Amino acid sequence: MSDRVKKVKVGINGYGTIGKRAATAIGAQEDMEVVGVTKTRPTYEATVANDLGIPLYVPDDAAIETFRKAGIKVAGTIKELYKKVDIMIDCTPGDVAESYKKEYTDAGIKAIFQGGEDHSLTGISFNASANYKESWGAQFSRVVSCNTTGLIRTLYPLDKKFKIKEVFATLIRRSADPNDSKKGPINAIEPSLSIPTHHGPDVQSIMPWLNIQTMAVKVPTTLMHLHTVTVKLEKDITTEDVITLWKKTPRVRLVRGKSGVKSTAQIMELARDTGRSRGDMYEIIVWEDGVKVVGRTLYYYQAVHQESDVIPEIVDCIRSMCKLEEDATASVKRTDKAMGI
Amino acid sequence: MSDRVKKVKVGINGYGTIGKRAATAIGAQEDMEVVGVTKTRPTYEATVANDLGIPLYVPDDAAIETFRKAGIKVAGTIKELYKKVDIMIDCTPGDVAESYKKEYTDAGIKAIFQGGEDHSLTGISFNASANYKESWGAQFSRVVSCNTTGLIRTLYPLDKKFKIKEVFATLIRRSADPNDSKKGPINAIEPSLSIPTHHGPDVQSIMPWLNIQTMAVKVPTTLMHLHTVTVKLEKDITTEDVITLWKKTPRVRLVRGKSGVKSTAQIMELARDTGRSRGDMYEIIVWEDGVKVVGRTLYYYQAVHQESDVIPEIVDCIRSMCKLEEDATASVKRTDKAMGI
Amino acid sequence: MSDRVKKVKVGINGYGTIGKRAATAIGAQEDMEVVGVTKTRPTYEATVANDLGIPLYVPDDAAIETFRKAGIKVAGTIKELYKKVDIMIDCTPGDVAESYKKEYTDAGIKAIFQGGEDHSLTGISFNASANYKESWGAQFSRVVSCNTTGLIRTLYPLDKKFKIKEVFATLIRRSADPNDSKKGPINAIEPSLSIPTHHGPDVQSIMPWLNIQTMAVKVPTTLMHLHTVTVKLEKDITTEDVITLWKKTPRVRLVRGKSGVKSTAQIMELARDTGRSRGDMYEIIVWEDGVKVVGRTLYYYQAVHQESDVIPEIVDCIRSMCKLEEDATASVKRTDKAMGI
Amino acid sequence: MSDRVKKVKVGINGYGTIGKRAATAIGAQEDMEVVGVTKTRPTYEATVANDLGIPLYVPDDAAIETFRKAGIKVAGTIKELYKKVDIMIDCTPGDVAESYKKEYTDAGIKAIFQGGEDHSLTGISFNASANYKESWGAQFSRVVSCNTTGLIRTLYPLDKKFKIKEVFATLIRRSADPNDSKKGPINAIEPSLSIPTHHGPDVQSIMPWLNIQTMAVKVPTTLMHLHTVTVKLEKDITTEDVITLWKKTPRVRLVRGKSGVKSTAQIMELARDTGRSRGDMYEIIVWEDGVKVVGRTLYYYQAVHQESDVIPEIVDCIRSMCKLEEDATASVKRTDKAMGI
Repeated sequence: MSDRVKKVKVGINGYGTIGKRAATAIGAQEDMEVVGVTKTRPTYEATVANDLGIPLYVPDDAAIETFRKAGIKVAGTIKELYKKVDIMIDCTPGDVAESYKKEYTDAGIKAIFQGGEDHSLTGISFNASANYKESWGAQFSRVVSCNTTGLIRTLYPLDKKFKIKEVFATLIRRSADPNDSKKGPINAIEPSLSIPTHHGPDVQSIMPWLNIQTMAVKVPTTLMHLHTVTVKLEKDITTEDVITLWKKTPRVRLVRGKSGVKSTAQIMELARDTGRSRGDMYEIIVWEDGVKVVGRTLYYYQAVHQESDVIPEIVDCIRSMCKLEEDATASVKRTDKAMGI
Repeated sequence: MSDRVKKVKVGINGYGTIGKRAATAIGAQEDMEVVGVTKTRPTYEATVANDLGIPLYVPDDAAIETFRKAGIKVAGTIKELYKKVDIMIDCTPGDVAESYKKEYTDAGIKAIFQGGEDHSLTGISFNASANYKESWGAQFSRVVSCNTTGLIRTLYPLDKKFKIKEVFATLIRRSADPNDSKKGPINAIEPSLSIPTHHGPDVQSIMPWLNIQTMAVKVPTTLMHLHTVTVKLEKDITTEDVITLWKKTPRVRLVRGKSGVKSTAQIMELARDTGRSRGDMYEIIVWEDGVKVVGRTLYYYQAVHQESDVIPEIVDCIRSMCKLEEDATASVKRTDKAMGI
Repeated sequence: MSDRVKKVKVGINGYGTIGKRAATAIGAQEDMEVVGVTKTRPTYEATVANDLGIPLYVPDDAAIETFRKAGIKVAGTIKELYKKVDIMIDCTPGDVAESYKKEYTDAGIKAIFQGGEDHSLTGISFNASANYKESWGAQFSRVVSCNTTGLIRTLYPLDKKFKIKEVFATLIRRSADPNDSKKGPINAIEPSLSIPTHHGPDVQSIMPWLNIQTMAVKVPTTLMHLHTVTVKLEKDITTEDVITLWKKTPRVRLVRGKSGVKSTAQIMELARDTGRSRGDMYEIIVWEDGVKVVGRTLYYYQAVHQESDVIPEIVDCIRSMCKLEEDATASVKRTDKAMGI
Repeated sequence: MSDRVKKVKVGINGYGTIGKRAATAIGAQEDMEVVGVTKTRPTYEATVANDLGIPLYVPDDAAIETFRKAGIKVAGTIKELYKKVDIMIDCTPGDVAESYKKEYTDAGIKAIFQGGEDHSLTGISFNASANYKESWGAQFSRVVSCNTTGLIRTLYPLDKKFKIKEVFATLIRRSADPNDSKKGPINAIEPSLSIPTHHGPDVQSIMPWLNIQTMAVKVPTTLMHLHTVTVKLEKDITTEDVITLWKKTPRVRLVRGKSGVKSTAQIMELARDTGRSRGDMYEIIVWEDGVKVVGRTLYYYQAVHQESDVIPEIVDCIRSMCKLEEDATASVKRTDKAMGI
């Protein structure tokens, strides 16, 4: 890309778990740049943004004063940020997206929402491999949640190649992120009683034809979600067929229990050891020695790094919405190369 | 029962998690009594046995000396115990049952093994509601494991009444018992990679006709296992049909999330509050507001108290093997009444 | 005690962790009785109260309706309860004690508050062994918190016998109770930054002459608090002197790591095995092989069962306030015998 | 440094938690290089070493075969590695250091041992700020453990400036490293019963004059150790004096609870956010709003990242032993700059 090509200017609304990772990933691409992030409170994360040289925007003038008292540099208010960007990545917590959508609309800018919001907010949901083109040029799109992204990453290629008849998955969810020391439980398992859970319909926002049902429980861990998945297929296939397919699938990575990756703990260690930013594992991890086809039923376990698996999807979604790259595969390759995947 | 009726004399080999609960439960019945338990090391649990007045037997004369030095009273060696009992409850750890079976055979006594052993050890496996009569008069039987007992408790009546076509369950297992401070993980989820796991075939040791597949993961909690279960049925039924059935099923108990039983933590609290020995929950717990029939597929969550759910089964198994009671339902009633279930 | 002796009538405001245990303990005494407990929401704990035959009182008529709809029997409103009791045990959560104190005053009844409230609320704080007589006939008193009770149980006799010069303790606190599945952290240690922490001054509400400083951290466990304590003494004493003293001290219990009680997990197992109500350990647990005097400094570890150690103190406090028993030692004996300590 | 300057050639015996971090840190320095690391089993960590281009050495020819079968490239046996290095960093597990010391002696090479070994193994222990020169030119030295390093980092400058009379610390230890999914406890606190614990004498291997006593407990977390420390000083000083001192102390970093760093969870988040290799926090973290001087007693909390705080010390120890840099302060600066501290 020539230096003269104008980079897409991106703003990030909310500099928390997803927002700060999006900032790092977008900053690593050559066709887009982060012009500012927003923060509501002057925490240590705001100080880090200062240290990294990322311009900070805050809700209003009162907040500017609060931040300055805390010794944190502020570039302006969020309204000022809107004027500088082509697209906002909305990483705000739940319940406020609706009102922000109105602000983005008024400001005449594009925006990407997260999977915590309903599909109905945008009418378009995004996964790079499955439906890159649906967000092409759109003003608003939604990158589906970490768990939904995880399910689509392995199911979409399976369905495309072998035709899926039915999927059932149990989602064993981490209860809090690593930087959250408030939430529990410390010692309990908690089921999501409203079943089948919303994860099935959320997958259908991308793959509407898929027959999928899900249940979910929360467990006392912070590292990753883990899914047990059973897939009934239309065709006779072998375990090896599935493994071969996933080995070629972008953002799906196979590990083996017999080489010491016994649990989510070792997956995270692997990410740290390979020099990933923040020790993140952007790929969906499938245990190669935990994949098994019996008759026409496929069983497998996959682990999802809830803090980061959607990050490369956000980058691709920007490319589709801002018409930076027509080909999904090419976008995925560019994103992954820049992120060291 | 008249005082003149001779009680069946029971010995318990291993006074750990299961052994000590079996001792309490058997001691509460009017047609059987504990004449001794065995212990290999002079721990605080041995002291408690002394305090409770339960005769302690140890491996050999050297052990007698060790225990006496630790200030713990010993009644004799395990060989001496064999002479005093009609039946042994084998609660030894894995890998030694085979050799103990030989000892019991030589001593001419009956024995019950636990679910940690293979079905092939005894050729007969036991669940009170499903196959009480199969162990009738047998010399050896095996009470299936906590998880298998849990699955049979809810599936057997379902199958009997509505005919099951297929079952898939994910077992989210506690990683260590509450009194175990050695085992982890502290912060990880670990899948059982050899799939489908052995739990399906173990259910089939009691219900050989059942089409059931399972997967399993370990999570960092000590309280209970939790199962997500999907059942395909042959008939059209409603959620209410299932709830009505389980309300009448012995050793199955319904709780509701909306009354505050959100997780395994509150189930254990319920057991403690209702005055159960050791805070045990012998019943399989099903969330009433987590049961859902969609088409001919039933989804439900159940929780299994791994320390205690098999205990009433052990009592019933003694009755069947020692021909104390011909009717399964009658035995279950007597057991449960004596245990406060 | 003759049947004609009128029992003190006790009401319990709040039927949670402390309230329900107080109900059980008071119900076991021969000179007092529980005439009702209060509950604000129709949870499973309210159902248990119904099952146990404990009259339930609720805030107002609206609540009566809510409970009845949930199928839970209600005896009346809290104002009606006030008319039936001599004394209320206030087990309400923080921030409301002040207004309840006014209600109790208006109703002309006595009340005991918990350690979560400040000493200034009542002007009198209570520990059975240390200052039983200070609450004699009082209208209001406060049973100090679980941690403060724990420190006083071991320090008061030490000071009385050997004269303490200075105490420093680190309180390693459980982060949530076993029945709480909301609070974390799941994987972190959190210090109490405002130091020295309030625990020292709280001990001084009972032992004002004691030179004691404390620090505290929260850790991801639910079972017990654990204290590391260093005590500088005025006299030369031996490790054995201290152990001998505590062996004779009521509500202090020695355990040994070498007999398998390595952690708080095995202490809780011990409580369950010995048939304690709810698996509670009312005594402060000191590791005998973790007591050490070096020069004139004593080091020891003690564990505190936060759910239950104050319960026998509440019973004794009733006796002092209602003038049921003049002698502290006699009251402690009666309480402990009735509770199986 | 000119290209012609010969770099010190370093081998690392054991490529686990410490070994792999030492490899990264040494690889970042301009005056030393890693020529090989050893591994006994062909795990995923060995694959990562391959991917990073770090030559792998194994125990013997049989191991070479095992690794090759697992698809992992091997450079030779450990005996061959000895011939290529000036110094070995011994990161082997406990109990084998003695025999390796003999091997290093026979090979005529230097070696650094870890804090898991006794001081008597080498007769010299190392901390860069406290006693850099003691290891000057030595054949063997020992970098003290993570906890000991942590205590010395804050105590040494305190003692130097304000003269310490007495220290008491409680070490609240993480029970397992993040990549360890075997060890527990899941829900318990476990005291180290042999008191005062060995940590005091270990600090004295560097500061023999210091009057320090310690106690320790294990808690269910993986992230960091946390110390509560009380220091009695010879002089009147203020809280501000201490904070000012530590702000200038290398490898000590102040954080504030009021800016959101409430627990070890947020410290680790800070390390990840600031781009540290593996998300490591090499500095000892002191809570600025948790430092308090009362009279002549100082109270503070510090957190120790057990996986990484010794790593820069290892680098400095190489410089001292290999006579690469005479001045301790200069070495610390070079190390820290290269590691991004």
